[in-house]
Amino acid sequence: MFPLNQWYVAGFIWELQDKPLARTLLNHPVVMFRGPDGGVAALEDRCCHRSVPLSCGMLEGGGIRCGYHGLLYAPSGQCIEIPGQLKIPGKACVKPYQVAVRNQIIWIWLGQDAAGEPPEIAAHDNPHYRYKGGAFHYQAPYQLIHDNLLDLSHVGYVHTRTIGGNAKTHMEAPTQVSSDGHHVRVVRRMPASQPPATYSAAWPFKGLIDRWQEIDFHVSHLNIFTGAVDAGTESLDDPQRGGFHMRGFHGITPETETTTHYFWTMACSTHPDAPDNLETVYQQTAATFEEDRVIIESQYRNMRQFPGAGMIDIHVDAGANRARRIIDALNAQAQQAA
Amino acid sequence: MFPLNQWYVAGFIWELQDKPLARTLLNHPVVMFRGPDGGVAALEDRCCHRSVPLSCGMLEGGGIRCGYHGLLYAPSGQCIEIPGQLKIPGKACVKPYQVAVRNQIIWIWLGQDAAGEPPEIAAHDNPHYRYKGGAFHYQAPYQLIHDNLLDLSHVGYVHTRTIGGNAKTHMEAPTQVSSDGHHVRVVRRMPASQPPATYSAAWPFKGLIDRWQEIDFHVSHLNIFTGAVDAGTESLDDPQRGGFHMRGFHGITPETETTTHYFWTMACSTHPDAPDNLETVYQQTAATFEEDRVIIESQYRNMRQFPGAGMIDIHVDAGANRARRIIDALNAQAQQAA
Amino acid sequence: MFPLNQWYVAGFIWELQDKPLARTLLNHPVVMFRGPDGGVAALEDRCCHRSVPLSCGMLEGGGIRCGYHGLLYAPSGQCIEIPGQLKIPGKACVKPYQVAVRNQIIWIWLGQDAAGEPPEIAAHDNPHYRYKGGAFHYQAPYQLIHDNLLDLSHVGYVHTRTIGGNAKTHMEAPTQVSSDGHHVRVVRRMPASQPPATYSAAWPFKGLIDRWQEIDFHVSHLNIFTGAVDAGTESLDDPQRGGFHMRGFHGITPETETTTHYFWTMACSTHPDAPDNLETVYQQTAATFEEDRVIIESQYRNMRQFPGAGMIDIHVDAGANRARRIIDALNAQAQQAA
Repeated sequence: MFPLNQWYVAGFIWELQDKPLARTLLNHPVVMFRGPDGGVAALEDRCCHRSVPLSCGMLEGGGIRCGYHGLLYAPSGQCIEIPGQLKIPGKACVKPYQVAVRNQIIWIWLGQDAAGEPPEIAAHDNPHYRYKGGAFHYQAPYQLIHDNLLDLSHVGYVHTRTIGGNAKTHMEAPTQVSSDGHHVRVVRRMPASQPPATYSAAWPFKGLIDRWQEIDFHVSHLNIFTGAVDAGTESLDDPQRGGFHMRGFHGITPETETTTHYFWTMACSTHPDAPDNLETVYQQTAATFEEDRVIIESQYRNMRQFPGAGMIDIHVDAGANRARRIIDALNAQAQQAA
Repeated sequence: MFPLNQWYVAGFIWELQDKPLARTLLNHPVVMFRGPDGGVAALEDRCCHRSVPLSCGMLEGGGIRCGYHGLLYAPSGQCIEIPGQLKIPGKACVKPYQVAVRNQIIWIWLGQDAAGEPPEIAAHDNPHYRYKGGAFHYQAPYQLIHDNLLDLSHVGYVHTRTIGGNAKTHMEAPTQVSSDGHHVRVVRRMPASQPPATYSAAWPFKGLIDRWQEIDFHVSHLNIFTGAVDAGTESLDDPQRGGFHMRGFHGITPETETTTHYFWTMACSTHPDAPDNLETVYQQTAATFEEDRVIIESQYRNMRQFPGAGMIDIHVDAGANRARRIIDALNAQAQQAA
Repeated sequence: MFPLNQWYVAGFIWELQDKPLARTLLNHPVVMFRGPDGGVAALEDRCCHRSVPLSCGMLEGGGIRCGYHGLLYAPSGQCIEIPGQLKIPGKACVKPYQVAVRNQIIWIWLGQDAAGEPPEIAAHDNPHYRYKGGAFHYQAPYQLIHDNLLDLSHVGYVHTRTIGGNAKTHMEAPTQVSSDGHHVRVVRRMPASQPPATYSAAWPFKGLIDRWQEIDFHVSHLNIFTGAVDAGTESLDDPQRGGFHMRGFHGITPETETTTHYFWTMACSTHPDAPDNLETVYQQTAATFEEDRVIIESQYRNMRQFPGAGMIDIHVDAGANRARRIIDALNAQAQQAA
């Protein structure tokens, strides 16, 4: 079960070219394409005639034509042509979904009437940053990815070759967890610590660094602001501080109860001596997320091997547990309403 | 569920060489081989001793010997040798199935006592035609293939590179649907139309063609007679008309409730200027059927994604819907009898 | 269902190097590693924190550290370090399993308190023999492998290229079956018979051979002593007889109800003229077992195709049927006790 009344990430605008894009999102098979005005349309991915996926069809004049018998659908989902037949039955239509594009992200609302605009991901349109991203597919339920991202202490063990290493520093760093409404915030600082491999590769640090991890969890996505300055040069309390910034965006969209789409971007600041650091950051971040995928899928396979086995909480779980309580409450509300 | 009391295609006689042939037909695992007289034997594919498939064994003296402990079976299914044991228990036998070979097709009857001979497929033994065929395996239930073959309007969209193209001509051509007993007939004519790619490759048409599609559905197979003459040169009402003939045979045999064997041949007429057109017709027909397989398997996967979703009928569905009613009635009869 | 109160083979000692070894044994996911004293530890393969397999972690100081958040476990299963946290909850532990190493074989006891030592496999430490082995994985339940090994008459049909051939000799050879307690013994002799391919390749026989097969079934494993002497040169009743000895060890450990680990070794005697016959024997034995795997997996697939179909016993099944009765009785006892 997942909270339905949320804006979830359905993809990135650059994924929509001259072909339909099919994705199952929260158990709904969806086909996306650009409508006649360049806007994004999202429809139930099933021709109402004989159930063939519309995503197997062709884009034509801003609509989508089924590849089996040629029924043509407008972005609204209404069938507007049945070849060889004058009358189009009123029932000849497919369900449209509400989508919105903001900061190059395609958001979809699969629940009741959409509430407001999708969230702003400002780093995508901030001239101080360059960004790049991609999509992973997980054979694991979405909340295991929340757990992972809300507890960056694992980077000491899992990501020793990129953004992690020095497990002891991570595990012993003081961590602040706070929450309000449907938002959880986890902040960890590691002053005067060794820069991890990715930081050294992307930024000309002079030696030890003052490093931060600021995680903001929302029900459908997380923003994780990490980075560092040369040790002792700037206050980590200054929101305008410089240094090396990695602003990660993590759209965690359930595909089904047991599989998940993970849409991500990483935006980073540039340095005159490292003007092309984005590609390094992108490559190492992708490698890092692949390490996460391997361990989370192992975790999920093992949870199925041991159904009903209890889990023991440790100190690093505080943030993840708050996020789980938020989602439990939303799901309970939805069940009561139903 | 499928109508059991029918002759279904089990294979082609040229498939039986010096090894047993295993196929699951209407949920029955069957092993086929040539008996001592060259006739075809079909047995339950399971040694009565320890359940090993007989099709893993060896042909010997017109019988089949299990590859595990050497029990030898006659074409009747009776065990006739247990190595190292004098007495053969009366129960040591496997179920035989009734088969008949006609026009190089192996037919099998899996229901109650077989009624009469299997149908004649005359084109296979007509000296005016040459033919070639093969077998496809579908991850889809058999009736979706009936639907496909009874509605050739899809060729305009699915088979643009071979026998289709010009979707508008197909969709708007007048179509006659008739039926009697367990037979449905769909006839479409497209006078003065453009020849599709396969027709042009196989026959020296002079320009526009008068084209026909005559589909005869029977419960276990379809005969589809398509072809064309140079426009205006012969009456399409003349059963003796010449021109380019493609006589398709389509044996649609359920493997299980959700998978299907598709046995097919295509027989075509030859022209003095195109004496070797069979190979072209065969290759393009095989490519065409592969396009059908892809779309029908997508359709079936999508039907499982949307269980219980309704379908909207359009004008092209009349023939397919009559065929479905025939099969529904046969299945209802069988359930009542049981 | 399987008899739990037995020593089962979990692996070979040479498989434990510098990484954890994961295996599911009788439905229990187990991780094995060498403890601080070089002894073997076996633990439930699941970190008590977030269920990640411990086998994805690292060996460290004789213990095993989880690869996700770094919890460190002693060979006893007790968690002895939670990085960044002083207090270790009492519940932070995983289940240990009793293991013992004897003759280079790792044995595990997954039932109630282990009874005595694991069995001795003397050929592994007998200076007159050299041995080598491996592990197969079967998509089939364990008792089908017992059946196979207790009835070597199949070698005439299945292993024609290695240890078998001459089916008639095997099927007609007198066979003695005896049993006591949880032990079944099957003995077959084939005097003055043709040596099979593997025998000829590994030993300089002069012509016909006096050949024996002595199978000792125990609930978790079988010892199969086969071999031959030049015909007429020694009594097969002499336990000290020479000639070509193949002493097979077969540890049949259920992985799940429907899959099995097959651990095996083959020890053979050497001849001055064939000092390196072990590699030949090993390669041909491995090829032979691969033939068995193919047929047994086909058998099991077919049993699922024909659920509930009866089986007919023949003369060769006497030993296998006694073994099945022993296991049935043990399982019935266990069910009564539960």
